[in-house]
Amino acid sequence: MFEEKDFEKTPLSSMGEFGLIEHIKKQFALDQTSSIIGIGDDAAIISHADNTVVSTDLLIEGIHFDLSYMPLKHLGYKAVIVNLSDVFAMNAIPTQITVSIAISNRFSLEAIDELYKGIALACKRYKVDLVGGDTTSSKTGLIISVTALGTAKTEKLSYRSGAKENDLIVVSGDLGGAYMGLQVLEREKAVYKVNPNSQPDLSTYAYSVERQLKPEARADIIDLLDSSNIVPTSMIDVSDGLSSELLHLAKSSGVSCQIYEDKIPIDPEVLQICKEFSINNTTAALNGGEDYELLFTVDQKHYDALKNHPLVTVIGHISEVAKGNNLITGLGQQIELTAQGWNSLLEQD
Amino acid sequence: MFEEKDFEKTPLSSMGEFGLIEHIKKQFALDQTSSIIGIGDDAAIISHADNTVVSTDLLIEGIHFDLSYMPLKHLGYKAVIVNLSDVFAMNAIPTQITVSIAISNRFSLEAIDELYKGIALACKRYKVDLVGGDTTSSKTGLIISVTALGTAKTEKLSYRSGAKENDLIVVSGDLGGAYMGLQVLEREKAVYKVNPNSQPDLSTYAYSVERQLKPEARADIIDLLDSSNIVPTSMIDVSDGLSSELLHLAKSSGVSCQIYEDKIPIDPEVLQICKEFSINNTTAALNGGEDYELLFTVDQKHYDALKNHPLVTVIGHISEVAKGNNLITGLGQQIELTAQGWNSLLEQD
Repeated sequence: MFEEKDFEKTPLSSMGEFGLIEHIKKQFALDQTSSIIGIGDDAAIISHADNTVVSTDLLIEGIHFDLSYMPLKHLGYKAVIVNLSDVFAMNAIPTQITVSIAISNRFSLEAIDELYKGIALACKRYKVDLVGGDTTSSKTGLIISVTALGTAKTEKLSYRSGAKENDLIVVSGDLGGAYMGLQVLEREKAVYKVNPNSQPDLSTYAYSVERQLKPEARADIIDLLDSSNIVPTSMIDVSDGLSSELLHLAKSSGVSCQIYEDKIPIDPEVLQICKEFSINNTTAALNGGEDYELLFTVDQKHYDALKNHPLVTVIGHISEVAKGNNLITGLGQQIELTAQGWNSLLEQD
Repeated sequence: MFEEKDFEKTPLSSMGEFGLIEHIKKQFALDQTSSIIGIGDDAAIISHADNTVVSTDLLIEGIHFDLSYMPLKHLGYKAVIVNLSDVFAMNAIPTQITVSIAISNRFSLEAIDELYKGIALACKRYKVDLVGGDTTSSKTGLIISVTALGTAKTEKLSYRSGAKENDLIVVSGDLGGAYMGLQVLEREKAVYKVNPNSQPDLSTYAYSVERQLKPEARADIIDLLDSSNIVPTSMIDVSDGLSSELLHLAKSSGVSCQIYEDKIPIDPEVLQICKEFSINNTTAALNGGEDYELLFTVDQKHYDALKNHPLVTVIGHISEVAKGNNLITGLGQQIELTAQGWNSLLEQD
């Protein structure tokens, strides 16, 4: 990390837009039966027997990612993951993506190949086809727009709006890691600026740094729900922080949520980094964001199926709206939940 | 045009990303029966009885548009149109769009409202629903990413690859207007820079300027084909210039094309502007781009149905690949067609 990137190899202008599209197309075969026509026509054609789920995200250099510590291959991977996570959050199965990129002429063909290697790896791992996109130039940084398509039967779909009183609140994996990984990377970047010869040892932060640079989407949770015959009454992915997502579910469903501080799953490494950075670990989990875990509610009857499952943690329950949204601390204190998640429009101030 | 834009009214940071999404959502109701869930969940849900068609485009300020002469409302409209045009080019009917925008803090809420007014107008006119998107901040200019979804029965779909020897080559509307409109706007911008008090009179360029600033997509041609029981053997939309699109069709279909210079439809106003700018009008039509007309091939048996139709012009025919792709001039000269269409990756050099 932090090395000067020498990507001045094959200039993109030597192949032009159509040449670049042909070059990309070669690396992406269609594997999904629902992919009828992929890259190379005016539009892609897909054919889903059930509903089509569509989610899209726009990632901007300097706002959503920093190429000084984000390898292009990881960036390509993460750009796909954040969209697949949204499809999973509907309890749907992703099947196709489109990827549009805008690149300045500081990028070589080799740099773009790295980006698409990450995209291809995510496509392979999550069994989705790249079926289209757009390539254009940018005057400044790199811009990536991904649209993910998926499919689900109507009776499987989970919206944000279905949570009911007494439902259990469940979250997959653990929280706060991506945020603390970012803190580590930002610190090392600051050190590197002062001393470019410094060799950061990130081995004690490996889990958190990977959560930030190369997150995964929780396909395994969708499988678990399916095999357990559970359809969540509501579901959302944790991209802006647990607190913000809980408030979304509560507001959309017309209910309130009560979660228990000592139930919030946090990895031991993350606890250690929080200590090092003097950041309250509950704050990191509540407001950190970018964990791409799934947060969902289920009827109480599913408690036995989920209570000791290694992939998920029951962190609270749903109440009538009048109770307000609260965090109950280890000492039994009740603290109102507020959204302090990442807000890209506020960040510019 | 060219006035100083005073959009410093309501700062976007005062409402945040979720506030902005709520604000946008209110203006977009779902009208299509295939739109199940729109803005406000992790993903949109649509339900097509037939194939789903997907096309996406990324538009970058300073590359694809210039806000010094492009009103934001027109820009919003055009951003939708260019994507709908791609859906029509599959002989499909657009049904939904997603719109992602990245905005710097020089934009106020009122400015974004203008952009969405144009998007809403296009949605209304072309009967498509806005079902999702992303809003984020940009460090520099405005970025718009639109994905259009549509639907078509399998037997109706037209690809680039189906053109056959002796098929007729047909184009809708007329060509070169958007390009010459751009020349006029660029000239007036240069005049304005020298003398900000100049009041350009664009009335004699009205058609061409509108072709550039507020193009339409050819829904009427899809209706015409449907009512005439014609499925084009191949189709593409004219976004990069007639020459470039003809070469795409020919290459994808493994054939060649012969077109007649004196058949290329050009509006009288465009001819006049070409004269004024000393630009060859055939060159403007062949290489201009951004006309968003439909270029398609049909079996010869449809000649009578199309030959004198006011919406379309038969401009040539398909030959075996060995003949090469040619323009036949009024004097019977044969000139090889080459792609000199707009290439955003080359433009930076």
